[in-house]
Amino acid sequence: MAGPVQSIERAAAILRLLAGGPRRLGLGEVAASLGLAKGTAHGILRTLQHVDFVEQDAATGKYQLGAALLHLGTSYLDVNELRSRSLNWADALAARSGEAVRLGTPLEGSVLIVHHVFRPDDTFQTLDVGALLPLHASSLGKVLLAYGTAATEPGREPELEAYTRHTLVDPERLARALAAVREAGWAAEVQEMSMGEAGLAAPIRGHGGLVVGAIGLSGPVERICDSHNQPRTGLISLIREAARAISRDLGAARW
Amino acid sequence: MAGPVQSIERAAAILRLLAGGPRRLGLGEVAASLGLAKGTAHGILRTLQHVDFVEQDAATGKYQLGAALLHLGTSYLDVNELRSRSLNWADALAARSGEAVRLGTPLEGSVLIVHHVFRPDDTFQTLDVGALLPLHASSLGKVLLAYGTAATEPGREPELEAYTRHTLVDPERLARALAAVREAGWAAEVQEMSMGEAGLAAPIRGHGGLVVGAIGLSGPVERICDSHNQPRTGLISLIREAARAISRDLGAARW
Repeated sequence: MAGPVQSIERAAAILRLLAGGPRRLGLGEVAASLGLAKGTAHGILRTLQHVDFVEQDAATGKYQLGAALLHLGTSYLDVNELRSRSLNWADALAARSGEAVRLGTPLEGSVLIVHHVFRPDDTFQTLDVGALLPLHASSLGKVLLAYGTAATEPGREPELEAYTRHTLVDPERLARALAAVREAGWAAEVQEMSMGEAGLAAPIRGHGGLVVGAIGLSGPVERICDSHNQPRTGLISLIREAARAISRDLGAARW
Repeated sequence: MAGPVQSIERAAAILRLLAGGPRRLGLGEVAASLGLAKGTAHGILRTLQHVDFVEQDAATGKYQLGAALLHLGTSYLDVNELRSRSLNWADALAARSGEAVRLGTPLEGSVLIVHHVFRPDDTFQTLDVGALLPLHASSLGKVLLAYGTAATEPGREPELEAYTRHTLVDPERLARALAAVREAGWAAEVQEMSMGEAGLAAPIRGHGGLVVGAIGLSGPVERICDSHNQPRTGLISLIREAARAISRDLGAARW
């Protein structure tokens, strides 16, 4: 059986590099970041440019991500069954709760947002689809961690990053919190990623009963929590109902 | 100077294949479609799976696009200068015109939608970002063709596809229409892609004055056109103003 194709792995690493950090990089920066010879990096970049995965700025010669990736990314959404089965339930959850709804799946030690319904009011909101959230500091991520759907990648996240003074950065405290999530069947995040913001989430099970994703509400802490900073029980019920309905649609035997 | 890296070109071709057509393909189908030996296709697919560009369905063994592409695709949007310079102007154009606004750039013989502002009413609309439109049957595409920003790819589109009885499928009629676009400075598409729908678009020029994209309105033909099926002049003025404003922001010397 053939092993992984090195040049494809390197090409993927270059795209990942361009998707993070400064997002426009020169040949030397790309080569140095990945420990490649300049000639090797150049050959890969030229090929990626040829297939429209990378664009080169005419003025500076720097490289950035290319247009073909946008079409591939949205095509992924079209084929994602978790998302397609959730669309109507997510709309209904946003309408009933009056809050923003997001749907997450694991991607490389993070939560990938695959669907986002805006809070049904006229406030300015930006679409989070495609964004990555930290596992330990988001309610969606805590669900994925609690049920073993995602794991913090040992090599990539040696320490749990503190986003606010409420972030769970102690592995033992996080482990206890995850046990509580499994016990309760839902997860909360209160000002752990951003002061003033909170989120609640519940697991979505797929065919076979395994947790394949999470659905949750997020917004200003005073809307998500009551006056004692406790998650509003009415919102929790709504999220759990939506999660169960989607699980049933996905063919989970129990939900 | 190194030539293109064959395995990366093949990997890109597989991703493109999965983004079109049925979107879930078995190993044999992938290999046959691209004229590859099964072992070669398998090695590439396994590597693409390893970097999360492809997912394999556990039940059927079929391959589909993977989650990492969504993050790369939305990261492309973050770095796209045409889009970022256009956001506020697109919002203003939608508000002033009362119609849906879309922004397009060329991608491989099509128009790629990089931004979409919904028509400001409460009707159900789906986000077109990441979608591909035909060059010859969309107002955005006609602009890109007229100014040489895009070209129909000879190998890929031997004939102009007829979407409706109004689609310009005769190359000479299309050439005359494109000359008229250059003369007028804007393009219209009236029921040429879908009966009952119409669109208007104008060119956006970048640094150096070359046309780098197009901005336009689209919607029901009775809203975009007057009672004689002619594009509403008021809408054309609004689009051209927005296109000029964005061109100025992009550093075009004349616009």
